[in-house]
Amino acid sequence: MPTSEPIRLGPTSYGKSVVRLVKVIRNAAQHELHDLTVDIALHGDFAGCFERGDNTSMPATDTLRNTVYAFAKHHPLDEIESFGIALASHFRTISPLVTGATVSLTEHPWERISINGQSRDHAFTRAAGERTANIRATSDSITVEAGIDSLLVLKTTASGWEGFHRDQYTTLPDANDRILATSITARWSYGQQTNLPFGDMWRGVRECILATFGDHYSPSVQHTIYRMGRAVLESFPQIERIHFSLPNKHYLLYNLAPFGLENPGEIFHVTSDPFGLIEGTIERQSERARV
Amino acid sequence: MPTSEPIRLGPTSYGKSVVRLVKVIRNAAQHELHDLTVDIALHGDFAGCFERGDNTSMPATDTLRNTVYAFAKHHPLDEIESFGIALASHFRTISPLVTGATVSLTEHPWERISINGQSRDHAFTRAAGERTANIRATSDSITVEAGIDSLLVLKTTASGWEGFHRDQYTTLPDANDRILATSITARWSYGQQTNLPFGDMWRGVRECILATFGDHYSPSVQHTIYRMGRAVLESFPQIERIHFSLPNKHYLLYNLAPFGLENPGEIFHVTSDPFGLIEGTIERQSERARV
Amino acid sequence: MPTSEPIRLGPTSYGKSVVRLVKVIRNAAQHELHDLTVDIALHGDFAGCFERGDNTSMPATDTLRNTVYAFAKHHPLDEIESFGIALASHFRTISPLVTGATVSLTEHPWERISINGQSRDHAFTRAAGERTANIRATSDSITVEAGIDSLLVLKTTASGWEGFHRDQYTTLPDANDRILATSITARWSYGQQTNLPFGDMWRGVRECILATFGDHYSPSVQHTIYRMGRAVLESFPQIERIHFSLPNKHYLLYNLAPFGLENPGEIFHVTSDPFGLIEGTIERQSERARV
Amino acid sequence: MPTSEPIRLGPTSYGKSVVRLVKVIRNAAQHELHDLTVDIALHGDFAGCFERGDNTSMPATDTLRNTVYAFAKHHPLDEIESFGIALASHFRTISPLVTGATVSLTEHPWERISINGQSRDHAFTRAAGERTANIRATSDSITVEAGIDSLLVLKTTASGWEGFHRDQYTTLPDANDRILATSITARWSYGQQTNLPFGDMWRGVRECILATFGDHYSPSVQHTIYRMGRAVLESFPQIERIHFSLPNKHYLLYNLAPFGLENPGEIFHVTSDPFGLIEGTIERQSERARV
Repeated sequence: MPTSEPIRLGPTSYGKSVVRLVKVIRNAAQHELHDLTVDIALHGDFAGCFERGDNTSMPATDTLRNTVYAFAKHHPLDEIESFGIALASHFRTISPLVTGATVSLTEHPWERISINGQSRDHAFTRAAGERTANIRATSDSITVEAGIDSLLVLKTTASGWEGFHRDQYTTLPDANDRILATSITARWSYGQQTNLPFGDMWRGVRECILATFGDHYSPSVQHTIYRMGRAVLESFPQIERIHFSLPNKHYLLYNLAPFGLENPGEIFHVTSDPFGLIEGTIERQSERARV
Repeated sequence: MPTSEPIRLGPTSYGKSVVRLVKVIRNAAQHELHDLTVDIALHGDFAGCFERGDNTSMPATDTLRNTVYAFAKHHPLDEIESFGIALASHFRTISPLVTGATVSLTEHPWERISINGQSRDHAFTRAAGERTANIRATSDSITVEAGIDSLLVLKTTASGWEGFHRDQYTTLPDANDRILATSITARWSYGQQTNLPFGDMWRGVRECILATFGDHYSPSVQHTIYRMGRAVLESFPQIERIHFSLPNKHYLLYNLAPFGLENPGEIFHVTSDPFGLIEGTIERQSERARV
Repeated sequence: MPTSEPIRLGPTSYGKSVVRLVKVIRNAAQHELHDLTVDIALHGDFAGCFERGDNTSMPATDTLRNTVYAFAKHHPLDEIESFGIALASHFRTISPLVTGATVSLTEHPWERISINGQSRDHAFTRAAGERTANIRATSDSITVEAGIDSLLVLKTTASGWEGFHRDQYTTLPDANDRILATSITARWSYGQQTNLPFGDMWRGVRECILATFGDHYSPSVQHTIYRMGRAVLESFPQIERIHFSLPNKHYLLYNLAPFGLENPGEIFHVTSDPFGLIEGTIERQSERARV
Repeated sequence: MPTSEPIRLGPTSYGKSVVRLVKVIRNAAQHELHDLTVDIALHGDFAGCFERGDNTSMPATDTLRNTVYAFAKHHPLDEIESFGIALASHFRTISPLVTGATVSLTEHPWERISINGQSRDHAFTRAAGERTANIRATSDSITVEAGIDSLLVLKTTASGWEGFHRDQYTTLPDANDRILATSITARWSYGQQTNLPFGDMWRGVRECILATFGDHYSPSVQHTIYRMGRAVLESFPQIERIHFSLPNKHYLLYNLAPFGLENPGEIFHVTSDPFGLIEGTIERQSERARV
């Protein structure tokens, strides 16, 4: 019973979340549009504030918000990784108490409205899928992660789940042809490489994940995660590690037998809950030691 | 004070909501995928049930759900309007008490994953925007509405709000170049025409709305609604009436002056609430009498 | 085919939604707290704006927002009905074009934090359930509706669904002891009575609904709606009509037989979708003619 | 550039999320009701499955779901911590590949409907706030965390933010009397103590947090976190560590000056985004070494 021990402050952080930023670049011909959500967290020695109510050298979260908008003025926002690096580099030295900063960014994609093959200069429609980045800056390093959020994908065949462990609570039959539906969340690490062609790489990783998702018979979500991760690491030597989090959204055959109808993989009902959740990291050999 | 008057049952309805249906059509070459959410409401004389607890001739909402899946077996689901007509035609005579049915459908669009210009046969990714339909069947008529939900669009210029009414509570300045951002919800009526090429028309209306959204200087969301509605009615004589509901999502210039920066329409912050909400119907001359 | 008919503007409205207002009344001893969300819609002849882009005499939705906060300064906000009446009375004459206004209000309830039976003067915690009001003002009348939102209730017994209509798509067995769970949404009309003790009545109606929900064997959600409505009208002669919308949230017995376990109404799983949805109005005899 | 290094599998896990469980205990007099959401994650050596598609000894997530319902049959569910311990103890040995399990539980509170001071035996209404637990089992230990979710609290006075760090991006003025509003998420650790009176302790911690929230002038959310954490550790020697995550929900004075009105802390508008986010851990001296 640890009662007599002194009480102390453990890890802390604070910052501003859901800063919604839009920038319009008014080129003569066509406008460019960037739509971001930014979250900032500061790390450091905040014991004076937490323990004694002393705000000296504590930046206000409102200042963090202002800084995002001010920095956006001179940054092209073409790559959220580089904007995040600029912000995190600034925030890690914002006050003597601060020793590090984490900046998380989500880009909400828009595409030009196109009518009869002609794209409009100033009118846009929102596209599916979101690009994310996570930048962590300490006093002597900056590490860069990129990612994908909410990429909904589905295979109508070439997926199963067979030969698994059975115990007294197992009722699920083997399946060698089921629907596999998921919402891909992926995060991959560029380590301390801060000058990569982030946009090209992001589009390449996304295409690699989509191509792999559809190119094999999937004996499990687990194995498909591994194949997608391996394909990304093999194609992109700059990536050290990739992590996937995939909900297994259950599309279940509806029982039509009471109505005298067969249902050979045609009619499904979809359930919101519960869902399977499978997570896995694929990395280079040297990674675990390093991290 | 109406105390002494008898109490009676007014309008009632009941049904099943959020029936999630997926159908896979397993053609030899490529699978087709249809992903719908269906809501059903029955109308009729349900006084026995409500007033006296007598369930005789009251269909269970579970039966409505079963019926959706059973009907999906033999319907191609290529057009949600025609599937809704089939369901509503059945439900309006499901029991002696029932005199009408409303079936609302939403199609969640998926598109084939395409890699290097080659589309996959069995792998899909979710697309943006949703197609809706609303079918109302009574004993002697069926009326068909189609619609669009959650179509996010944005113009970076060619939008303003000037010369409006000012009173003692007005602080908003005139604006002749603002961002216009909204999520288009539209509903249009085909009246009792149940054999139209619904898919072609839906795609045509959607394109007409998008084309009009971007083709003019918008002095107000109100005027843009009218122009979009008029364009649809002029292009599609089969449509009797169209209704729009558009939130005005406010993208506000961020004040960069305290930081010595100018902000000529470049840097915006986005607010979730509050938002303007503008609604309008555009219809043919004969409509109001008829409805 | 109605092609040759002129196109015209049908019904329109516009306003501001999700205006979030908090007022603190700093009494010497204890602070009072009111937390509201307000939606406003204006009705009138807006053809000049919609059809020709002429904003003359069109109030800005931003002005509506300002007005809510300015009016809150001098109104105690003790009853959302009376605040809504004040706002709607003002908005219906805000400009020569405006002929009516609808103001919808939701009160988010807070209660004082109480420690060892002593309530704190300035510290609050959010309570469950929401109070709503809807005020419609035209040039010559004001009608008042009050309501309840999101009141989650559940009965573990004294509920069933038996003897219902069966057809070829029916698989549901009769049930004479099931869980009944729902989220009550109710709206009731005070007609043009604008000087009632709205707070006392709201609390009375809420208690009457809760008391009736639990006081009988429910043969159907439909019958329970009727009983709750009838009880309210019998207890409150000022109320002309009440409407209920109740989702039937399905709590289903989990099949424990494969594990050698009986399940006599003990273990349930809860599904989010689909759900039954039952709606009904109970009113005084004279109502339908009047409305 | 780490290209030539072999690729390998890093950390993995999988399980079932959002298992919705309700149990009714049908005592003669009064029914008891327990309403839970359970998430399960398995940890272990799943390389065969991920790397080679071999499902041997891999439990299905559907089996995890069945197990939750089967175990609920014989467990009273009076304390979610003890139910979680039972589940995690079982899951950690569910197959030879599995070396550990994490079970997260949320209890959705219901309270008996009470009419005129008399509580109903079988009718309930949903209460605010949620109780959580997180149980981690490895082959040789079980650690227990309890928590609170979504406890919305607000102070109308005795809160400020002054004397903070200012730089060229700071515009926020000092405030010595503001509204402090937040949604408390707390997690505290009982270490490996699996036989505590979890229910009494949870209620005690909750009351301690609420009492501290309101008992002092808050110079910052940070300091209030520390005071709440310290109070909990001082009152409950069994607790080793507590972590808080508090969004600072901004309630901002509305500018009434343009309307000739003063606003001395009376009229506020509430914004959803952005929000401050403050996190902190308070722990006993020996903790950090141990974890």
